[in-house]
Amino acid sequence: MHLIIDGYSCNPEILQDEDYLRNWLEAYPSRISMTRISPPYVLKYTGSKLEDWGISGFVFIAESHIAVHTFVERNYINIDVFSCEDFDTDKAIEDFQQGFNLCKSRTCLIDREWPLTEAAASSPLNFISHGK
Amino acid sequence: MHLIIDGYSCNPEILQDEDYLRNWLEAYPSRISMTRISPPYVLKYTGSKLEDWGISGFVFIAESHIAVHTFVERNYINIDVFSCEDFDTDKAIEDFQQGFNLCKSRTCLIDREWPLTEAAASSPLNFISHGK
Repeated sequence: MHLIIDGYSCNPEILQDEDYLRNWLEAYPSRISMTRISPPYVLKYTGSKLEDWGISGFVFIAESHIAVHTFVERNYINIDVFSCEDFDTDKAIEDFQQGFNLCKSRTCLIDREWPLTEAAASSPLNFISHGK
Repeated sequence: MHLIIDGYSCNPEILQDEDYLRNWLEAYPSRISMTRISPPYVLKYTGSKLEDWGISGFVFIAESHIAVHTFVERNYINIDVFSCEDFDTDKAIEDFQQGFNLCKSRTCLIDREWPLTEAAASSPLNFISHGK
């Protein structure tokens, strides 16, 4: 299950706080019964376009990964929670909305499990839902 | 643009080759005009379910990230190429299909750019395409 949450934060301070993101990525996996198998990797990005600077964070979990990218000047954030094990996606959406003070967000859920038959392996990826 | 490629490899050796994945993640971003901003992080995962072991790799790019997870016993691989800049997704699909010897794969493309209006920010994420 791959949960994508993209949104706008009402708290621009959070979007540039590397320690906050590092602590979040360290602690969060266990809150949705995932097993963290690496330290969190967090860095600040300042690129050629000044308005695109932000912080990025990533952590490996046994079931796949969690990744976060922020765009501070736009108050924008991209979040991926990807796990081959089922998890409580409603809880994860609520946790990230609260944890990053999202005033607007949109989400989608993609079933990326291995297909059990050859025919299914040729079928399109299954978008379970996409909502606000 | 977030490109997802999930598939089966005909070359199980590649799916367990940490050096191959590390080299791929180090070299690949520049092939699609992306800027790598971290070393590649690669690790082997052996979990509680024996059949789920594999390798995982991740690299930060200026525009977001590339992530790869393999499931060796199933010959299965999950690939994410996520960039806020446009890139040649057809080329990326072909490169990964060739580079990881995918005999079957399915892809999808998600537009994750920040919406330019408040109304758009409340609309669902835009799935541009999903194909075989």
